[in-house]
Amino acid sequence: MGKIRTPLVLINFKTYLEATGEKAVELARLVEKASLETDVCMGLAPQHTDIFRVAEAVSVPVFAQHVDPVEAGSHTGHVLAEAVKEAGAIGTLINHSERQLRLSDIAAIVKRTHELQMVSVICANIPEVSMAVAGLNPEMIAIEPPELIGTGIPVSKAKPEVVTDTIELVRKVNQRVTILCGAGITSGEDVAAALRLGTEGVLVASGVVKAKDPYNVLIQFAEAITKA
Amino acid sequence: MGKIRTPLVLINFKTYLEATGEKAVELARLVEKASLETDVCMGLAPQHTDIFRVAEAVSVPVFAQHVDPVEAGSHTGHVLAEAVKEAGAIGTLINHSERQLRLSDIAAIVKRTHELQMVSVICANIPEVSMAVAGLNPEMIAIEPPELIGTGIPVSKAKPEVVTDTIELVRKVNQRVTILCGAGITSGEDVAAALRLGTEGVLVASGVVKAKDPYNVLIQFAEAITKA
Amino acid sequence: MGKIRTPLVLINFKTYLEATGEKAVELARLVEKASLETDVCMGLAPQHTDIFRVAEAVSVPVFAQHVDPVEAGSHTGHVLAEAVKEAGAIGTLINHSERQLRLSDIAAIVKRTHELQMVSVICANIPEVSMAVAGLNPEMIAIEPPELIGTGIPVSKAKPEVVTDTIELVRKVNQRVTILCGAGITSGEDVAAALRLGTEGVLVASGVVKAKDPYNVLIQFAEAITKA
Amino acid sequence: MGKIRTPLVLINFKTYLEATGEKAVELARLVEKASLETDVCMGLAPQHTDIFRVAEAVSVPVFAQHVDPVEAGSHTGHVLAEAVKEAGAIGTLINHSERQLRLSDIAAIVKRTHELQMVSVICANIPEVSMAVAGLNPEMIAIEPPELIGTGIPVSKAKPEVVTDTIELVRKVNQRVTILCGAGITSGEDVAAALRLGTEGVLVASGVVKAKDPYNVLIQFAEAITKA
Repeated sequence: MGKIRTPLVLINFKTYLEATGEKAVELARLVEKASLETDVCMGLAPQHTDIFRVAEAVSVPVFAQHVDPVEAGSHTGHVLAEAVKEAGAIGTLINHSERQLRLSDIAAIVKRTHELQMVSVICANIPEVSMAVAGLNPEMIAIEPPELIGTGIPVSKAKPEVVTDTIELVRKVNQRVTILCGAGITSGEDVAAALRLGTEGVLVASGVVKAKDPYNVLIQFAEAITKA
Repeated sequence: MGKIRTPLVLINFKTYLEATGEKAVELARLVEKASLETDVCMGLAPQHTDIFRVAEAVSVPVFAQHVDPVEAGSHTGHVLAEAVKEAGAIGTLINHSERQLRLSDIAAIVKRTHELQMVSVICANIPEVSMAVAGLNPEMIAIEPPELIGTGIPVSKAKPEVVTDTIELVRKVNQRVTILCGAGITSGEDVAAALRLGTEGVLVASGVVKAKDPYNVLIQFAEAITKA
Repeated sequence: MGKIRTPLVLINFKTYLEATGEKAVELARLVEKASLETDVCMGLAPQHTDIFRVAEAVSVPVFAQHVDPVEAGSHTGHVLAEAVKEAGAIGTLINHSERQLRLSDIAAIVKRTHELQMVSVICANIPEVSMAVAGLNPEMIAIEPPELIGTGIPVSKAKPEVVTDTIELVRKVNQRVTILCGAGITSGEDVAAALRLGTEGVLVASGVVKAKDPYNVLIQFAEAITKA
Repeated sequence: MGKIRTPLVLINFKTYLEATGEKAVELARLVEKASLETDVCMGLAPQHTDIFRVAEAVSVPVFAQHVDPVEAGSHTGHVLAEAVKEAGAIGTLINHSERQLRLSDIAAIVKRTHELQMVSVICANIPEVSMAVAGLNPEMIAIEPPELIGTGIPVSKAKPEVVTDTIELVRKVNQRVTILCGAGITSGEDVAAALRLGTEGVLVASGVVKAKDPYNVLIQFAEAITKA
C-alpha cells in the first residue's frame, strides 16, 4: 500500500457504475499508472465492496468513502474501521456531504482511525465547520461546498474566499492538518488554482470518473502540480 | 455461487471481529464444509468489505447485510445493490433491526433486487410488520423480535405465538414468500422448533459466530433439519 | 374539537410562514368558516408549536404533522403522541414523504395512537407501500406521489392508475381504512376527480396555504364535494 | 419573556409526562416562583407543543429542546426556529445527546438562531466536541457526558476533568461562550461543584422534573448559587 504525500490527488469513486466492481479495478490501474509516471501522489476511494480487490490490484493508497461509528459486535449492515483496514484501506473519508454524520460520531471515528493508525479525511462544507472539525485532529480536511459538487465549477474560481477563509480559521486551531480542496475540479488549471490558494491537494470525483479519458485528466492534474 | 434451497441456515456475520477480514473467509470455509457434508443449504452474510473475498473462496450463497436505497451516481459512502452483486452476493438482508430503513426505501430496495435478480430477505420485528412487508413481494422474510437477538433465548420457546401469528398474517397477503425464524437460536433443538412452527429456515448470528466450535454448531443445526 | 367525517379536506400547514404562529390561527379560522358554511368536514395540521393555540381558537379537527416514536421519558427534542393530544390534536399524520419513518416506528406510532384513541393518517408514496401500511390498521391512508407534491399537477390527472391501484391493493388487506388523495390538488375539479376515482377526501397543502384567497379555494373544494 | 443571566439553572422537561401539557404549565409556575424568590435566573425547555402555553403562563425564559435545520416551506413534520420563537421561546437547545444532529445542521441552526436573535445552547458530550462547536459561536455550550444522564451521578464528581478540560479547550477558541454543566445533577452540592469547576450554570432534567418536590430542589440549587 502506497504512502501518502502531498500534494495529493484523491479520487472519490462514489457509487458511479463507471467505478464499480471490475471497472473500479480498471480505473484504479489508470490512477496507478498516472501516479507512477508523474510521481504525483494519487489515492482513490472505491465503494466498500471494491476496497479489497482494488487494494490487491494496485499500489496507490486506497481509502474508504465512509466507516460506521460502531464497534465490533451486533451491528448488522454496518462496516467497521477495522474491516476497511483489513480489506486494504489506509484511511477513510469522513462526513462527506453525501454521507453526513452526527458530530459525536465524527469525533468517535477520528479517534478510532487514530487507534488503528489510519488516515482520517474529514469533509466540511463551510469554513466554520472546517474549523470545528480541525479541533478533532484529523490528518486531513477536505473543503467541499456541496452546491458546487458535480458542477464542473471549481470552488477556487466560484468562491475562492471559502478556501482562504477555511485555511485561516483552521490554522487558528490546528497547524498540522492537511487541507484539500474539493468540488467542481475538472482541469489542471483548477488544481493549480487550488494549490495557489494554499491547499495541499484536491478531492475529485466526477471530474475524473466521468471523464472521457480519466488517465489524460490525471496527467493534466499531475502536470499542474509539478509546475506549481 | 450456490443456489438457495430451503430449509435454509443463514448466518449473519454482523460486525463481529471473529467474522471480519481473513477470519470471515475462514468461517465461510467452515460453513461451506458443514453444508457440503450435510447437504443442508447454508448461506452467509459478511460485511460489505468481505463479500468479494468470501465469495471468491467458497461456493455457498453469499448475502450482503444491507444495501443502500440509492441509484448509481453521486452517493459517497453508500453501497449499490449492483456493487454487492458484482462482488459476488446473490442477495441481501434488508431492514435488519440493527439497520432499519424507511418503508419507502425498503420498497425501493426490493424492487431493485428484483431487477437485478437478487434474493431479498426482509427482516421484521412483529407479525404486523411481517404482513406489511409481505405485500412488497420479497423472496424471504426473517422474523426477529429484537429483544431476543443475542440472548440465546429462541423465539420458538419464548414467544412461539410470534412465529405462528407471523405465518398466519403473512399468508393472508403472500403465499409464496419463504419465512425464516431468527433471534436467539443456538442449538439444533432451536432449529427443530423453528421448523415445527412452520418456518423454512433460520437466521442466526452469535449462535454460530461466537460459538467455541462453529462447525460443530452448524452440524447440529443440519442434523435437526435432516431429522425434521 | 370537531368530529371527523368523510369526505374530508385535510390541510397540511407544513412549515409555511403563511401558516405559522398567529398566521396559523388566522388560516385556521378561515378553514373553520368554510367548513361551517358548507358543512364539509375540514381538518388542519399545523406545526407542533401551533397546535395548542389553533385548537383553542377553532372547532375543526386539528392534527399533528408527525409524532415521534418514543415513550414518555428521556427523549429531549422529541414530541409524544400524548403531548399533541393534550395540546388539542385528535390525530396525526404519520410518515409524510417529507418526514419518513422506519417501518417499525410507523407500526409503533399507529399502536400508540390507537391506545390514545387518536386518528392515524399514514402517508404512502406508491400502491405497494399503501398496501403494506394498510395491514397496520390505521384510520386513514393518504396516497401522495412525492414527485407531484407542490406541483399543482394532481395525481388524479397525472397518474390516475396510482389511485385506482392503491385502492385495489389496500382493499385486499383492509376493508375499512379511509383513503385520501394527496399531492398537487389546487382546484375543485381536482377534488372532484379524486372522489370519482374512489377516494374519500383530499390531503392538501400549498394549494390552500399558498393560495391568494385560501377561503375561496376551500369553498370551491367544498362545492366539488357537495356536488359529487 | 425573562432575560438570561448567569449563573443559569436551565431545566429540560424532555418528554416526561410529569412535564407535559397542563403539568408543564404547573411545573413552569414552580420554576418561576423559585426564580423570583431567590433572584437566580432559571429557564425551562418544554416540548414543542407546550412552548406557547408555558410562555403565556410564566415570565421565566423558555427554550425549545430542538429546532429543525429546515427553512420555511415544504417540510411536513418539522418545526422552524421562527415557529418556536413566535410561540414564545427565546432560544433553543441544539444537539442534545438524545437528539443529535449532523455537524452542518448544527452550524445552520446556530446561524439561523443568530439571525432571529435567539439564544443557542449547543450540547456536547466530550471536551473535543465542545471545542469543535465553540467555533460556531453559540451563546452557550452545555457539557453532558451521555453516560451520566439520569444517573444522579454528577460529572463534577465522577469526571471533574471532563469539565476542566472542556473549559480549557473551549477557551482556546472562544472567550465569550457561556459554559453550562449537565448530567446527573440532583442537589445544591452538585450545582456548587459545577460552579467551582468554572462553569456558569447547570442543565438539569430528571433531578428537578422527577423530584418529589421540584420547588424545594430548585431552592436548594439557588442557595448553592447564591453562596458561591
